[in-house]
Amino acid sequence: MYQIGIVKRSITRAVAAAVERLAGFGVATVHEAMGRVGLMKPYMRPIFPGAQIAGSAVTVLLQPGDNWMLHVAAEQIRDGDIVVAACTADNDDGFFGDLLATSFRARGAKALVIEAGVRDVKVLTEMGFPVWSKSVSAKGTVKSTLGSVNIPLVCAGALVQPGDAIVADVDGVVVVPAALAAKVADAAAAREANEGDKRAKLAAGVLGLDMYKMREPLEKAGLKYID
Amino acid sequence: MYQIGIVKRSITRAVAAAVERLAGFGVATVHEAMGRVGLMKPYMRPIFPGAQIAGSAVTVLLQPGDNWMLHVAAEQIRDGDIVVAACTADNDDGFFGDLLATSFRARGAKALVIEAGVRDVKVLTEMGFPVWSKSVSAKGTVKSTLGSVNIPLVCAGALVQPGDAIVADVDGVVVVPAALAAKVADAAAAREANEGDKRAKLAAGVLGLDMYKMREPLEKAGLKYID
Amino acid sequence: MYQIGIVKRSITRAVAAAVERLAGFGVATVHEAMGRVGLMKPYMRPIFPGAQIAGSAVTVLLQPGDNWMLHVAAEQIRDGDIVVAACTADNDDGFFGDLLATSFRARGAKALVIEAGVRDVKVLTEMGFPVWSKSVSAKGTVKSTLGSVNIPLVCAGALVQPGDAIVADVDGVVVVPAALAAKVADAAAAREANEGDKRAKLAAGVLGLDMYKMREPLEKAGLKYID
Amino acid sequence: MYQIGIVKRSITRAVAAAVERLAGFGVATVHEAMGRVGLMKPYMRPIFPGAQIAGSAVTVLLQPGDNWMLHVAAEQIRDGDIVVAACTADNDDGFFGDLLATSFRARGAKALVIEAGVRDVKVLTEMGFPVWSKSVSAKGTVKSTLGSVNIPLVCAGALVQPGDAIVADVDGVVVVPAALAAKVADAAAAREANEGDKRAKLAAGVLGLDMYKMREPLEKAGLKYID
Amino acid sequence: MYQIGIVKRSITRAVAAAVERLAGFGVATVHEAMGRVGLMKPYMRPIFPGAQIAGSAVTVLLQPGDNWMLHVAAEQIRDGDIVVAACTADNDDGFFGDLLATSFRARGAKALVIEAGVRDVKVLTEMGFPVWSKSVSAKGTVKSTLGSVNIPLVCAGALVQPGDAIVADVDGVVVVPAALAAKVADAAAAREANEGDKRAKLAAGVLGLDMYKMREPLEKAGLKYID
Amino acid sequence: MYQIGIVKRSITRAVAAAVERLAGFGVATVHEAMGRVGLMKPYMRPIFPGAQIAGSAVTVLLQPGDNWMLHVAAEQIRDGDIVVAACTADNDDGFFGDLLATSFRARGAKALVIEAGVRDVKVLTEMGFPVWSKSVSAKGTVKSTLGSVNIPLVCAGALVQPGDAIVADVDGVVVVPAALAAKVADAAAAREANEGDKRAKLAAGVLGLDMYKMREPLEKAGLKYID
Repeated sequence: MYQIGIVKRSITRAVAAAVERLAGFGVATVHEAMGRVGLMKPYMRPIFPGAQIAGSAVTVLLQPGDNWMLHVAAEQIRDGDIVVAACTADNDDGFFGDLLATSFRARGAKALVIEAGVRDVKVLTEMGFPVWSKSVSAKGTVKSTLGSVNIPLVCAGALVQPGDAIVADVDGVVVVPAALAAKVADAAAAREANEGDKRAKLAAGVLGLDMYKMREPLEKAGLKYID
Repeated sequence: MYQIGIVKRSITRAVAAAVERLAGFGVATVHEAMGRVGLMKPYMRPIFPGAQIAGSAVTVLLQPGDNWMLHVAAEQIRDGDIVVAACTADNDDGFFGDLLATSFRARGAKALVIEAGVRDVKVLTEMGFPVWSKSVSAKGTVKSTLGSVNIPLVCAGALVQPGDAIVADVDGVVVVPAALAAKVADAAAAREANEGDKRAKLAAGVLGLDMYKMREPLEKAGLKYID
Repeated sequence: MYQIGIVKRSITRAVAAAVERLAGFGVATVHEAMGRVGLMKPYMRPIFPGAQIAGSAVTVLLQPGDNWMLHVAAEQIRDGDIVVAACTADNDDGFFGDLLATSFRARGAKALVIEAGVRDVKVLTEMGFPVWSKSVSAKGTVKSTLGSVNIPLVCAGALVQPGDAIVADVDGVVVVPAALAAKVADAAAAREANEGDKRAKLAAGVLGLDMYKMREPLEKAGLKYID
Repeated sequence: MYQIGIVKRSITRAVAAAVERLAGFGVATVHEAMGRVGLMKPYMRPIFPGAQIAGSAVTVLLQPGDNWMLHVAAEQIRDGDIVVAACTADNDDGFFGDLLATSFRARGAKALVIEAGVRDVKVLTEMGFPVWSKSVSAKGTVKSTLGSVNIPLVCAGALVQPGDAIVADVDGVVVVPAALAAKVADAAAAREANEGDKRAKLAAGVLGLDMYKMREPLEKAGLKYID
Repeated sequence: MYQIGIVKRSITRAVAAAVERLAGFGVATVHEAMGRVGLMKPYMRPIFPGAQIAGSAVTVLLQPGDNWMLHVAAEQIRDGDIVVAACTADNDDGFFGDLLATSFRARGAKALVIEAGVRDVKVLTEMGFPVWSKSVSAKGTVKSTLGSVNIPLVCAGALVQPGDAIVADVDGVVVVPAALAAKVADAAAAREANEGDKRAKLAAGVLGLDMYKMREPLEKAGLKYID
Repeated sequence: MYQIGIVKRSITRAVAAAVERLAGFGVATVHEAMGRVGLMKPYMRPIFPGAQIAGSAVTVLLQPGDNWMLHVAAEQIRDGDIVVAACTADNDDGFFGDLLATSFRARGAKALVIEAGVRDVKVLTEMGFPVWSKSVSAKGTVKSTLGSVNIPLVCAGALVQPGDAIVADVDGVVVVPAALAAKVADAAAAREANEGDKRAKLAAGVLGLDMYKMREPLEKAGLKYID
């Protein structure tokens, strides 16, 4: 159950070196390496193409039409963090724009992930400040109702603990528990090493049917070839 | 109540100089300067990135699957106008393509805002003719049922009077009543002047919490910091 | 009725020369040339801008969360084919990524059209392998339940027979029956020839109202001009 | 452009007798009688079946997650009114429940039409207080940001002036300008009188093709019968 | 590819006795009996609860905002038919109301399945004329553009041939090829006979885990029980 | 992070007496009593009207198109439980029908809450077995991929721990942490006691403006009354 009106100052962040490694693999590989869990819903999209990042989560619970807690969150940002914001109700308002981005960047934030709307997308793009959001809207917000900062929360269907590693790219956003960041990075590396060989074979025309030895299980499942 | 089958030829356009100034501020700033009203729903998106424009509205009410009135509207376009089109029912057909864009441009139109679909997006992009629409669809339309031109109408949730100033960029589309265009441009200028200073402070690491003097109201609202 | 568990090996593809010509016209023109039928629903969008292609359909019926049949389909691909995949239930998982793209390309595939999700979009973009999909998602799939390959199927609201010509660009995806590909290409060419002249007139300021002789039918329909 | 922070106390309501007549016809007939304009979008649905009503609009502009203005509106309700509420951003919160319904009814309100969410649907149903809404949600709202009461506003795509006649049933919600209520009621009556005869013929097996004399225009349009 | 402007008069209907049997099983059982194919998308919903029917399809292709072809279709209805209507573009208008229902019933139609909107739902409910639709809307339609009657078409994602058996209830709508109706009814009967025994065991507390012998495959798949 | 392939047998359920009390208050009151947290998204709707229940959560994580884990979950059900099921990807298939309902009821389950589809709705309604779901679909599922039972999971945007109290009615579904069930029931009782008095005043025509002393804060916020 969410606690409202709380700011937790001390959180345990994922180890920076592991987070850095995760950034290199991208979301699809990390998601596979975790056993296909922790992915946010696919309506979370980047506001500009090309960004592929990872960082530790500072979490923010917002109220609809109210971005007060993003200002509170700014103070809790440490170098390399990604702010992850959810709202108590679906809302497409523009909770975040270029002023907050300037502030977040000055505090060391790498990006924002928000299950809501953002605005000033032209300037955010010029700044190169990446955002994954549910929508874009010029509509501003008020500052009058409390939410919370650094509580566990659900963002776009994924549970996020403060300090968890967040990996985001054009394929979406995935959440890696802080304690598992290094282990998941290892698994991702192993997976990627394995893929290079597969890619070469497939590029040479070898079929996945043969490479993955699927012909027998397909036949057992009853697949029929006809002409 | 919409009047069907009407073309109003004489409309009062927003003053061109004021419209020109509005284009410079962008949608988020203009929307704030108006007191956060007049914004279209966020599903209205540009077909290509980068355009930021303003113009006076020539309004068009369409019937589903029928673009006859866009041809009627072309004759009413004056230099610097933006055509704003709504449909009597939600419809994603491609009401507008490169031929109409050629005609609209020849008449002086700067852009199209349409709560429906458009097509020939590749050519529209090459032409640099900006469109904000609800969807993209190759499906063409017929020319058999009357709508109206230059009546007040609702487009994507916003009321548009013919002649109103329309401002559009990547953040969305906002409607400024013609009579208020200059006043809103002044308010936007004041707002923007004010933002430069804030941006510099935030970039230097000053917190919004302090700059906006939020700590006391947050405490009064009951915010608790824990470790 | 779909047959499940079937792979049809011999299909009649649209004539390559006709397919090639269709690629040049783009979707909106081809759709008009066919009499405005055969278009997929407009939620099918390209994962990167700029691609405009045509090819013969290899069809794949998938089960939700399961991409086994895409591997089966790879073997049926011939040079110039486009794989067209639908799912027995709406599902946004990432059924297709860079490994399958490598394999499909090695087999001669030009593109994928899938009413579901794809992933590895960054690499697919770098490879220049075009995909039209309903969504993007990093979530991978299992390989355990049979679908079919090269059966007639419904993809995004359009009926696709194996071998049909598929034309896709930024405006969407259209299906041309294999036997009609040449005839439709002829009709598209005629249509396009006709458009150049219209475009020149419209660019010179001639109104569609006059060029298409709409004034009389509009008046008969009851259109009133007021000041 | 919406004015924020305004309550208009004196509004011109549609004549009660005309409103009463409109209630008897239902939404589809009234909408036809108006020339097919004024209809709200079809996502506005009744919370329980069976209600068919009409009344004069008291309009309310809400902020997302904030129902303060509904309390302000209660004081402006006169006997026979229908409260019509819109929100400055899409929001599904439960802005209205049984306490407000008790208050609205005590003031004479017949119903609520709200482009947002409501709650306490079980009690509202027991009370027989009809509501047309976009959604149902138990989530309550705060009372901290101003909107307006009795300003012209857009609700679910339709422009509503305070005092306009609102007609609502299972087919949706339609807005009749106050000054036209009697005239529209006359037109609806004429339409309905005409329908009885048609219904009898159709029930006897006469085809619309013959009754509406469609065979010739269909043939002219090119319709072909094949066996 | 759809043919536009065609009415096919002679179609081969599913055998009435088989259709009658299908009505008794309901959609979920028939869908299973067919091997899980032929189901329309789940947004197709009944306008009132309780109806469970089957009939032979008379198909209608509509244009957006235009119900002309429903009048043409009326003449093709034979006793026991279900009219299945799709539109060339997504459209929620109310294409069908009580007058058409009166006509359809007089011609012997059992129901309407329409991937679009309907109106006069109160009267349709009183008449007991069942409709499965995508939406409800009071908005009427024009009669000016040709579609077709009794061509193969795609309705809500399912391919429907004229004459196919249609089964519809609260679970949705399924299409059974005319030639397979009897065979599918047999399979459904076998399935249902089998279910009675299972239901009794499950009601007595036997677990599906044991009844379906799932414990071993679950263990093989790696399922772990922990305390 | 979800663990896949796990069944937890021993969970700590909310105290039955407290759960029983929660059922009496309904979702809106319980949600308020918790401080407006724990609510599932409003797309979760009951399959038939009238049910208002509470129980302890047995949680199930499903794979798309695969209901194997619901059979595994049946064995973990104790008297008074509510099964809460989520899926690793959005999926509208009918994961649950009358056979599973028979089994669940025999094991003591009161209801199902599932962020996916269900089928056999007619029989479920006759049985009086309540379900809150995202959709209804006749499409069945396979049994081949592992999920988990009794792990913490996110269902329709809410975090659910196994054993948590679930309250559901026509307003939606709310999750109460097991340890807080009694305390929340107390708060709900206090709230409800308070509401009776308010309701009487409002029914007598007292305005919320006066009862809640809103006039002064509204004036301070700048509200203007005009005639």
